[in-house]
Amino acid sequence: MTAEAVSRRSRITPEREAELYGAVLDLLREVGYDGLTMDAVAARTRSSKATLYRQWGSKAELAVRALRSQKRVNLEDVDTGSLRGDFHRIVESEDDCRMEEDSALMRGLAMAVHANPDLHKAFRELMVAPEVTGLGRVLQRAVDRGEVGADNPALPYVVHMLIGAYVARDLVDGRPLNQSFLRDYVDSVVLPALGV
Amino acid sequence: MTAEAVSRRSRITPEREAELYGAVLDLLREVGYDGLTMDAVAARTRSSKATLYRQWGSKAELAVRALRSQKRVNLEDVDTGSLRGDFHRIVESEDDCRMEEDSALMRGLAMAVHANPDLHKAFRELMVAPEVTGLGRVLQRAVDRGEVGADNPALPYVVHMLIGAYVARDLVDGRPLNQSFLRDYVDSVVLPALGV
Repeated sequence: MTAEAVSRRSRITPEREAELYGAVLDLLREVGYDGLTMDAVAARTRSSKATLYRQWGSKAELAVRALRSQKRVNLEDVDTGSLRGDFHRIVESEDDCRMEEDSALMRGLAMAVHANPDLHKAFRELMVAPEVTGLGRVLQRAVDRGEVGADNPALPYVVHMLIGAYVARDLVDGRPLNQSFLRDYVDSVVLPALGV
Repeated sequence: MTAEAVSRRSRITPEREAELYGAVLDLLREVGYDGLTMDAVAARTRSSKATLYRQWGSKAELAVRALRSQKRVNLEDVDTGSLRGDFHRIVESEDDCRMEEDSALMRGLAMAVHANPDLHKAFRELMVAPEVTGLGRVLQRAVDRGEVGADNPALPYVVHMLIGAYVARDLVDGRPLNQSFLRDYVDSVVLPALGV
């Protein structure tokens, strides 16, 4: 986040921010990204459109930050002492109901990126990049502990494997994402590919 | 394909079918799935809407079959004698230009499935299921040759890993899909996860 963005956002309280994000997520569930308007957000949260644009700059940034606010866990803070433990802790950080709800929202946004270049940019910068960085820290600690070779060729692709689990669960299996599926995927695919 | 569908489709020549599919793909590139109309397909191909509906049943089926007609290789026909060879042959079956073009179309359709239940159904039945079946044959031959253990826990997830490569290449790396990336992904992720 730029210093300017921090200063912009610091003008509202965390409670008010959470309230606004909640309203945005409700609207995203109701009408999807393309149907979301700043007018509707302003009306539902009794704020002015000017305030919304001043604080968030764009509908794309507001939507992505609202979705990101749902994350319970910063990946880079997960440090159980083993890579398997770290992955399982990450999987367990959301219960199944919450995971299905959030993944539907995430899919909705990820789908809309292709028709909306500014959303594509916000999604990559504010949602994907921090996860890639956080996952990189988790993996680096595994390398430092000697669990994974520093030159293991699967290291740059862990995020690809994980995204595959999210997308294919719906598209191939036609089943909801849940903890037991993700745990099995981590144990069956991600850890073996890393030689753990 | 049902016998009824075969009989429906057999009324037009393969050349005419290819011409129709080409027009549908052009329109998908120009206006996307949501913008595609049977009127536009009829106009561009000088056919009647009644003919289109009789032959394909729905816009969803027509779009998915048009995309599927682009596949150069039936996965289950790939049989080089080794799993690594099979995967590389599959990767090499499309040149880089074609791959980028097709993956953009495929992404477009895969994205639209979430707002269109009939497209979701057609996409899963006519696009995903045959690939899963074909990949299953390739993997079964590797098991029969003794390359992969029959109880290898990554076997049900190969399609998830591959879909991850397709989706994340754009979303995470922001780079086009190509043969060298896919070859590296197969060698770094898919084969190691399978213990090959």
